[in-house]
Amino acid sequence: MQAAIITVGDEILIGQVIDTNSAYLGQKLSEIGIQLKKTFSVGDQHNEIILGLSQALNESDIVFMTGGLGPTKDDITKKAIADFLGVELFFHQETFDRIKRIFDRMERPMSPSHNDQCLMPQGVHILKNSMGTAPGMLFYHQGKRIISMPGVPYEMKSIMEEEVMPILRAESPNVILHKTILTCGVGETTIENKISDIVSSFPPNIKIAYLPALAQVRLRISGIGQNESELQQLVTHYTNLISDRISDVVYGYGETSLEKEIYSLSIEKGLKIGTAESCTGGLIASKLVSVPGSSAYFMGGIVAYSNDIKINILKVDKDTLAEHGAVSEATVMEMVDGAIEVLGVDMAVAVSGIAGPDGGTLEKPVGTIWICAGSRHHKVTYLLKAGKDREKNIEIASVYALNLLRKFISET
Amino acid sequence: MQAAIITVGDEILIGQVIDTNSAYLGQKLSEIGIQLKKTFSVGDQHNEIILGLSQALNESDIVFMTGGLGPTKDDITKKAIADFLGVELFFHQETFDRIKRIFDRMERPMSPSHNDQCLMPQGVHILKNSMGTAPGMLFYHQGKRIISMPGVPYEMKSIMEEEVMPILRAESPNVILHKTILTCGVGETTIENKISDIVSSFPPNIKIAYLPALAQVRLRISGIGQNESELQQLVTHYTNLISDRISDVVYGYGETSLEKEIYSLSIEKGLKIGTAESCTGGLIASKLVSVPGSSAYFMGGIVAYSNDIKINILKVDKDTLAEHGAVSEATVMEMVDGAIEVLGVDMAVAVSGIAGPDGGTLEKPVGTIWICAGSRHHKVTYLLKAGKDREKNIEIASVYALNLLRKFISET
Repeated sequence: MQAAIITVGDEILIGQVIDTNSAYLGQKLSEIGIQLKKTFSVGDQHNEIILGLSQALNESDIVFMTGGLGPTKDDITKKAIADFLGVELFFHQETFDRIKRIFDRMERPMSPSHNDQCLMPQGVHILKNSMGTAPGMLFYHQGKRIISMPGVPYEMKSIMEEEVMPILRAESPNVILHKTILTCGVGETTIENKISDIVSSFPPNIKIAYLPALAQVRLRISGIGQNESELQQLVTHYTNLISDRISDVVYGYGETSLEKEIYSLSIEKGLKIGTAESCTGGLIASKLVSVPGSSAYFMGGIVAYSNDIKINILKVDKDTLAEHGAVSEATVMEMVDGAIEVLGVDMAVAVSGIAGPDGGTLEKPVGTIWICAGSRHHKVTYLLKAGKDREKNIEIASVYALNLLRKFISET
Repeated sequence: MQAAIITVGDEILIGQVIDTNSAYLGQKLSEIGIQLKKTFSVGDQHNEIILGLSQALNESDIVFMTGGLGPTKDDITKKAIADFLGVELFFHQETFDRIKRIFDRMERPMSPSHNDQCLMPQGVHILKNSMGTAPGMLFYHQGKRIISMPGVPYEMKSIMEEEVMPILRAESPNVILHKTILTCGVGETTIENKISDIVSSFPPNIKIAYLPALAQVRLRISGIGQNESELQQLVTHYTNLISDRISDVVYGYGETSLEKEIYSLSIEKGLKIGTAESCTGGLIASKLVSVPGSSAYFMGGIVAYSNDIKINILKVDKDTLAEHGAVSEATVMEMVDGAIEVLGVDMAVAVSGIAGPDGGTLEKPVGTIWICAGSRHHKVTYLLKAGKDREKNIEIASVYALNLLRKFISET
């Protein structure tokens, strides 16, 4: 089965909004083995939508549309679909009743434009939208399908998860399984080279995808087959083979993250954690705090951007700063000690580096970043040699710092 | 003139990569008055690229392509363009010489696959790529144009800025001018309503675009005309009218940001600044630090996630916490005082709130966030009532906090 996507909206074409819906849909379709052949973005224009639909249906079996279902006059997807199919719009009472209930609950009146949201092309199959007023729509047309959903990402995602994916999964003759390995600290190419013999030995129904981000790579191992338990075994077998080969960089499986791993490990071990940040300026702490419930283990941190704060609050020795400099192994080790003391925690992570663009020297060029994770009695350090880009350096340093902290906690 | 974009690459269709190039190109084209009619994404497939090119050229005068120009065997854009145009590839010696110079400088050998990067379709006009090895290409075809660029965003942008935009600007009979007003703290609809009479009075050659982000809206006023100085006057006139009307929410013009404004104001006034963050967990500090050179005024911050740290480091009174709670006006005011004292700064900003998803009460529901900016002797506070989404609440709170700090510094 081949698919196409049409995203509708002037705001995409003038670059006001980056289209993230297509990437999400592409991922979902690839997970269940449907090949996405093409995506289009068109403006809020009747003839462009119709032309897009006819081109897309020409080349694929199922067309996903997002956008143009809102209550304003720009939103013309339904009229365009009706004209493309050669049918009329009719007033869909159940949709009206549902929208009215939502407004009644909020004690707000419905506006006349919401009546337009209840108009549906004849032949529609309603796809429930549990996150908003405009439902999704499914149409059958000459043995093919059109699925139209709102452009608001969380509404579209909820319709996909709750309504569309179950249909597509149920009709697939095959079972498709995925396992994701999360790694930190080495690049895609390095991993590819290390596991190339394993990948070459894959049977034809097992595949691997590399999903890279800054300083992290996710490996998705997918299997397709008819016998679920056999497939489960096969995917697990290859996931384990790969994991074992690169075990030094693997930090988890599935939907986790470094922050979530640190959260679970710290809670499990009953540890209180803190941070001491210079060049990352609070980014590490803010990542830890992004996990709901982090107050159960994360006490707080010191952003010691100036040397005075390193000295006065973190009690870094003036002589250490004078002798080794603020960007040094000795300084980050003392920052960890200071953070443990002043924050009253069991363990801390500290970072000090030259993020750039200025401040580099011959000995310590821009991108030189020292990291330390540790407790009062035991510490590990890492010297990161990053690039010239300030924003990237700060992000990479915080990812490496989280990973060093995670390793330290897990090995304690 | 009408344009289309074709982005090439399997990584886009399987959702590994979000296509940000189209939004960038859409913005650039709309800035110079070229209408983008459609964007496509196709896979690394010869026939799909050719089909896309023929559809795109059918509907538009100029087609921008990104992707598929790298040195690996997936990258087949050039062969597809050559076949579409019915021409051969030839070895472009100047490109070879340029790539060789780059590799010589890095003291690394060229690989055979780099020879392929020197093959060009006959009739090519080279567009210099100052950020990478693969040059951009311009072709004339039946009175229309094809522009092909690498998919790496910073390479594509550099070719657009340095090579393509000058050509497009030069051939436009019109001058196009833009001014951008930056606002914080109110939504798009509120601004739209406040200035609707001004927008209705625009002459036909003046337009406005609303570019919203979380808690911020940029307003872009554009003018098109033949006389540059008259147009300049006209755009300035309407920009001033709008700015004056919504002056309470305007914080700058053009390419600035809240962080950059705080940087400039603090340096100008010779102030040292610090932060004290509870629910934002270091995000405010990390935003301040994202501006190069921020160490000249930003000393550091305390992430006081636990009450112990509020008490022990920021010297918030235990009685204040007991009586008013950690999320209260009294607490954030004491956090500012504590930060000023312990960080040795002139002014500070503090935030304490309930980011969610848990921790809300009837009196203080999730999304209740107190902010204070001030000096030892004078403080301003703000009660933000945000929503239920943890990630959004943290982001919105940090934007409001930066804005409150900016106002406080500017009015001091």
